[in-house]
Amino acid sequence: MRISEFDSSLCPVARTVERAGDMWSLMILRDALHGLTRFDQFRKSLGVAPNILADRLTRLVEAGFLQRRPYSRRPPRDEYVLTEMGRDFRPVLYAIMAFGNRHFAKEGLASGLVDTETGAQAEPVVVDARTGRRVDDGSFALAAGPAADEPMLARMAFVAHAAEAGRL
Amino acid sequence: MRISEFDSSLCPVARTVERAGDMWSLMILRDALHGLTRFDQFRKSLGVAPNILADRLTRLVEAGFLQRRPYSRRPPRDEYVLTEMGRDFRPVLYAIMAFGNRHFAKEGLASGLVDTETGAQAEPVVVDARTGRRVDDGSFALAAGPAADEPMLARMAFVAHAAEAGRL
Repeated sequence: MRISEFDSSLCPVARTVERAGDMWSLMILRDALHGLTRFDQFRKSLGVAPNILADRLTRLVEAGFLQRRPYSRRPPRDEYVLTEMGRDFRPVLYAIMAFGNRHFAKEGLASGLVDTETGAQAEPVVVDARTGRRVDDGSFALAAGPAADEPMLARMAFVAHAAEAGRL
Repeated sequence: MRISEFDSSLCPVARTVERAGDMWSLMILRDALHGLTRFDQFRKSLGVAPNILADRLTRLVEAGFLQRRPYSRRPPRDEYVLTEMGRDFRPVLYAIMAFGNRHFAKEGLASGLVDTETGAQAEPVVVDARTGRRVDDGSFALAAGPAADEPMLARMAFVAHAAEAGRL
């Protein structure tokens, strides 16, 4: 599952995608955020082959999204619960949900996020926490940080050039 | 790539994940948002086998994220550019980037989003557009919408029960 990705292993998107950017991993995380914890719950929910499910659960544990917790001693059985980092993935899944509701909900809304006080449909958008402005309003750009290596610097120069040329 | 997912095909997360929730598809979308358009650019960037790249590009075109555009007549060659829907995926990738920077940037920040006016590091977070509140502040919950079918209603009841029991 290693990505060459312009010879830099530093890209934060690639690092996340390598750990959770797989159809089954993303669906397991969705189910975990719905409260599912047990192997059979995930298997039934997703209709996934047991060997694939076991592999993805192990990888999500190793990557730090899930942790094993025993729920039965005889027979010994573990369930899978979200770590603090796994719960921090919730907003990413809400952003994915909002995208799906905007573009793929041709029958209308089947599920969504609501304000529990008012019952109003929420509209998840991604903003800069400091300014409150939407990250896609044209006033933000990708840039290299202090830990960038040569390939990352070259990539960010390419991005800046594409932006200047109006190609983004 | 079909997911059984509790016998409902209506989940907006599943619909998006089925179309773009694959390591290569996500990395191609990242590269497209960096300004890459040509087959060889994606191949070099990602180190991906040509047959896999061709398959993922075709799927992203069919799903509506990318469109083909001819850039050479002799020999005939197409490049791949983001559709309006594809560009709307940008905030999702920024949310993934922010997650990666929070959890996997052990060397420090290699790349991130900056405010082009001030140069300040942006901090992408997911909020409700109406209220400006963060979607993970505990005041939002998943709920069925008008187009929910029986499996979706059952799932949302499960989620509500898990939330009441303090298991989310």
